[in-house]
Amino acid sequence: MTRRPKIVDSIIATFARLPGIGLKSAERIVFFLLKQPPKSVDQFAALLQALPKSIVRCGRCGTFDTKSPCPLCADRTRDQGTICVVAEPSDITAIEKTGQYHGLYHVLHGLLNPIEGVTPDALAIAPLLNRLKNETVTKEVILALNQNVEGEATSLFLRKSLRPYPVRVSKLARGLPVGGELEYADEITLGDAIKGRQTLP
Amino acid sequence: MTRRPKIVDSIIATFARLPGIGLKSAERIVFFLLKQPPKSVDQFAALLQALPKSIVRCGRCGTFDTKSPCPLCADRTRDQGTICVVAEPSDITAIEKTGQYHGLYHVLHGLLNPIEGVTPDALAIAPLLNRLKNETVTKEVILALNQNVEGEATSLFLRKSLRPYPVRVSKLARGLPVGGELEYADEITLGDAIKGRQTLP
Repeated sequence: MTRRPKIVDSIIATFARLPGIGLKSAERIVFFLLKQPPKSVDQFAALLQALPKSIVRCGRCGTFDTKSPCPLCADRTRDQGTICVVAEPSDITAIEKTGQYHGLYHVLHGLLNPIEGVTPDALAIAPLLNRLKNETVTKEVILALNQNVEGEATSLFLRKSLRPYPVRVSKLARGLPVGGELEYADEITLGDAIKGRQTLP
Repeated sequence: MTRRPKIVDSIIATFARLPGIGLKSAERIVFFLLKQPPKSVDQFAALLQALPKSIVRCGRCGTFDTKSPCPLCADRTRDQGTICVVAEPSDITAIEKTGQYHGLYHVLHGLLNPIEGVTPDALAIAPLLNRLKNETVTKEVILALNQNVEGEATSLFLRKSLRPYPVRVSKLARGLPVGGELEYADEITLGDAIKGRQTLP
């Protein structure tokens, strides 16, 4: 028979609803918090409370920031003719770290997944098409989406939706990752790595 | 270049400090929270804030509860002659679910781990010995600790510390788990399962 206090159960359930946290991890987290000084739990609560108040979606690219437009959208030195389409705000961070891209971004906030009810309406696709109508994106739309079923489906859908616009549409190269061994690569990756092979200088 | 808002970084760091959550999971959680209605994030924050205020350590067994003594310690129908020693409050829940135990509990709040600085002083061992001095635990102390290095070290230490007290000290049986296959059992488990074999009726 379990006789756990109600509040402990509610907070475990709340943690277990977060992505990547199961019931067991949620339990461990809550018992960990119970051992912390109350002040540090209070600070955690205060941060959480401040989060939705201080963060907005950028009216242009849709990323989360304290301001709209976000610093990247407001930066006029960035190439205004190119948009890189990503699934999540965190993907922007990943791409910015490479230092290889200097254009604009657009965050879809998800990838198509009909089984989980994620249809095109649930993603920021209409705002993307509006940007192509109203902004100066005349060169290229780069689809920087995950290399999985959802990412491929979304790329296909976007390719079709972008047909009416006179821009180049590209997607990330598929190939072996750094440190990747031929022996362990799946055949699709390896096949695409062969098709996309680069001529050496 | 990363240009993430400061509050997002702080809250990611706070989540990443919780057990079992890495930086990547913390990022996913925070971006998930940003997509939730502000009200549900507020409720999460309110629950967190209420947690340390509403939960105390039971003055007898040390578990977390809204009251001290906790319902298990206050329940006079439980066998007052036996204490089951566990590492964490969640272990009590696990043992209660079996319905096989009807005595008292004692929570150590951890296991000995000299490398991580967990010495006997950091655990609730002195309060356990006090209970043996002052309470009516005259029958048995069951050491229900993890079957790993830390659990074994703690069991050994407790065995020694309990020598002056005229009680039986036992530990959980080691053997094959339900569904366990001989072929995949490690030699120590299998060896202990042979040593602890049960005569069939």
